[in-house]
Amino acid sequence: MLRPMAIALVHHPVLDRRGDTVTSALTTLDIHDLARLATSYGLSRYYLVTPVLEQQKLIERIVNHWREGFGAEYNQDRCHALNLIETVDSLDEALADWRRVAGEDVQPVLTGARHRKGLGYRPAREVARQHPLLLVFGTGHGLAPQNYAHGWPELAPLRAGCYNHLSVRAAAAIILDRLVGEQGRCQLVGLKDE
Amino acid sequence: MLRPMAIALVHHPVLDRRGDTVTSALTTLDIHDLARLATSYGLSRYYLVTPVLEQQKLIERIVNHWREGFGAEYNQDRCHALNLIETVDSLDEALADWRRVAGEDVQPVLTGARHRKGLGYRPAREVARQHPLLLVFGTGHGLAPQNYAHGWPELAPLRAGCYNHLSVRAAAAIILDRLVGEQGRCQLVGLKDE
Repeated sequence: MLRPMAIALVHHPVLDRRGDTVTSALTTLDIHDLARLATSYGLSRYYLVTPVLEQQKLIERIVNHWREGFGAEYNQDRCHALNLIETVDSLDEALADWRRVAGEDVQPVLTGARHRKGLGYRPAREVARQHPLLLVFGTGHGLAPQNYAHGWPELAPLRAGCYNHLSVRAAAAIILDRLVGEQGRCQLVGLKDE
Repeated sequence: MLRPMAIALVHHPVLDRRGDTVTSALTTLDIHDLARLATSYGLSRYYLVTPVLEQQKLIERIVNHWREGFGAEYNQDRCHALNLIETVDSLDEALADWRRVAGEDVQPVLTGARHRKGLGYRPAREVARQHPLLLVFGTGHGLAPQNYAHGWPELAPLRAGCYNHLSVRAAAAIILDRLVGEQGRCQLVGLKDE
């Protein structure tokens, strides 16, 4: 059994194509895809990180619209949380909330395709058994440098050494499957619909 | 080393929410996401299956528009094919083309979340070492029954036993990672840009 797990999808600060630090626009499919993924792998929270009020309102509208169909599916299954999504202004706010829900020993782990010498999946699974994880994903062209200033561990890139420009949707799916696996279970904490 | 591998994303015949057989509409992000995924895992072809001429034209417009940015990235890496995408009318046409490119011993393998007793990943990797694979993914609410009439093997569903409503983008990413792995390589055949 793994400790509780959460993901954060960061829209600011991230890099654009030219390497400038920007706030990326929401990709609406990311809301659905990553919520379904997080639910399938037994996560307890999915933080959507954007400081832009209009984008936060858009998330709220989409989630409310979508809960009807999604809620119907959920009710057939009754084994995981629907209300995983939490919209926050910053990664700091996500971390503070997740610490409040899952405990002070939360360990943030960054993901990205840039740094070859990252944490391997065997040691990462060991961390996930010891600490509630907050897995941090960047949008746009990846997390901006200030996200790395805390010294948090960073997962090794996927399929390093050749073409590996995966979408964040594909990368998150592969990473959760490698960490949790087919049979793995995470502890569930603070589900909002129970 | 695995034999050459291809994926097919089927828009007809698939099921809708009510279980009726329909032709699903293209999700444009599927073009990008699955092409990037297929390239990252060393596949040789990505078949987009739709019999609708207007949708085929839309695919062509998107791919041509997108090649400029994508082509630039590709040229930095030079290790995989850009021109993976092939638009076809039917799964039969995809299979015929892939047999022509990869050999008569192509093995189609279906994917889906419905049938609990599917092919496990260990035997599936053995098939991938022996045969060029054509991995078949459904859109909408999954492949319609006539796709199963050939008796082709079917992969075991992901995260069976609980909520497992993954997007086809997430499922394809996880399945390719499980079959090919971090270090695995597929033979490349018939790349259109070489």
